Amino acid sequence: MSGSRREVLGDAAIRVLAEAGGRGLTHRAVDAAAGLPLGTAKNYHPSRDALLRAVAERIVEQYERTTAELMVSGARPVDRASLAALLTGLLRNVAGPGAPRMLAYLELQAEAARRPWLADILAPVVAADFTGFEHAQRAAGLPVTPRRAATVTLALHAAIPQLLGGSPSAVRSAGLDDLDAFVHGLLESVYGP
Amino acid sequence: MSGSRREVLGDAAIRVLAEAGGRGLTHRAVDAAAGLPLGTAKNYHPSRDALLRAVAERIVEQYERTTAELMVSGARPVDRASLAALLTGLLRNVAGPGAPRMLAYLELQAEAARRPWLADILAPVVAADFTGFEHAQRAAGLPVTPRRAATVTLALHAAIPQLLGGSPSAVRSAGLDDLDAFVHGLLESVYGP
Repeated sequence: MSGSRREVLGDAAIRVLAEAGGRGLTHRAVDAAAGLPLGTAKNYHPSRDALLRAVAERIVEQYERTTAELMVSGARPVDRASLAALLTGLLRNVAGPGAPRMLAYLELQAEAARRPWLADILAPVVAADFTGFEHAQRAAGLPVTPRRAATVTLALHAAIPQLLGGSPSAVRSAGLDDLDAFVHGLLESVYGP
Repeated sequence: MSGSRREVLGDAAIRVLAEAGGRGLTHRAVDAAAGLPLGTAKNYHPSRDALLRAVAERIVEQYERTTAELMVSGARPVDRASLAALLTGLLRNVAGPGAPRMLAYLELQAEAARRPWLADILAPVVAADFTGFEHAQRAAGLPVTPRRAATVTLALHAAIPQLLGGSPSAVRSAGLDDLDAFVHGLLESVYGP
């Protein structure tokens, strides 16, 4: 089985899940989104659970690739300003080009409450996120404790569903109508001015 | 149309959405969960979007009732310890009896990214949550700023999906394996020891 066809199917399944929700995730819809002959998705991922697994594994793969790219790109923050710029950029990505993947992730998170095996696939992303954001805060020279770092990471996580689907007034309630001010305020609330 | 039958249908739709996800939310499933004759849900809420609207409105209603009850029950925190007890209790409820409602809320949040009208129904809950938790932190005598209060609220929000469907290792990564320690650590990370 070709790795790249598997990837094409995985990416198509992410788009379908993001655009049509759990209800729209069918083999037929994935074949159509991938531009592949009817039956291809079913051949690779015979059940609906297998489709969900394919989405989750593809999201984990993309997360790991993105994280590795950030590492080598020299994007490691060296001070508070560059950390704020990094975090603002990540949030902008959630609201922009990263939206389909993050929306698929939200759907998987809800599905995981009914499927422990799915929660297990996603767990390394959660762990890597807490570790990665703690490292970034340390690299920026902030007076990090594990609790402080975790609070910042949690607040960033909570921003995601609002950025993806909150109404303008909910986005304002969460302070997310100005991402730059949001990130600075978040760092200030934990680390002081 | 009877208010109570509407409520029975709304509660049944919440259970169906929590147990079976967006894909399982059908008129037939809601009738069965409500123990009402086939056709009842379709009669009250003719389309699937109308069913989603019924779930959202019922969740907003229950949120408002619970908040009002908290107000009159004298549960208003008077110091840091009583605030911590209140927040720990709320998180325990998410992981326990409140799980179906919170899980239905997660599903709606994902659906809201594709349905602005649904995001609009949920917006008052988001606004009331930020306001309510800020009031509670002020009542507890903490040195509140709007940013600090919002950071605490966001971290509590981010705990919800992990408590509902995180694997044990993800729950540990988020520091949520000990809710009491989590809440104390969260308050300390923002307000100091």
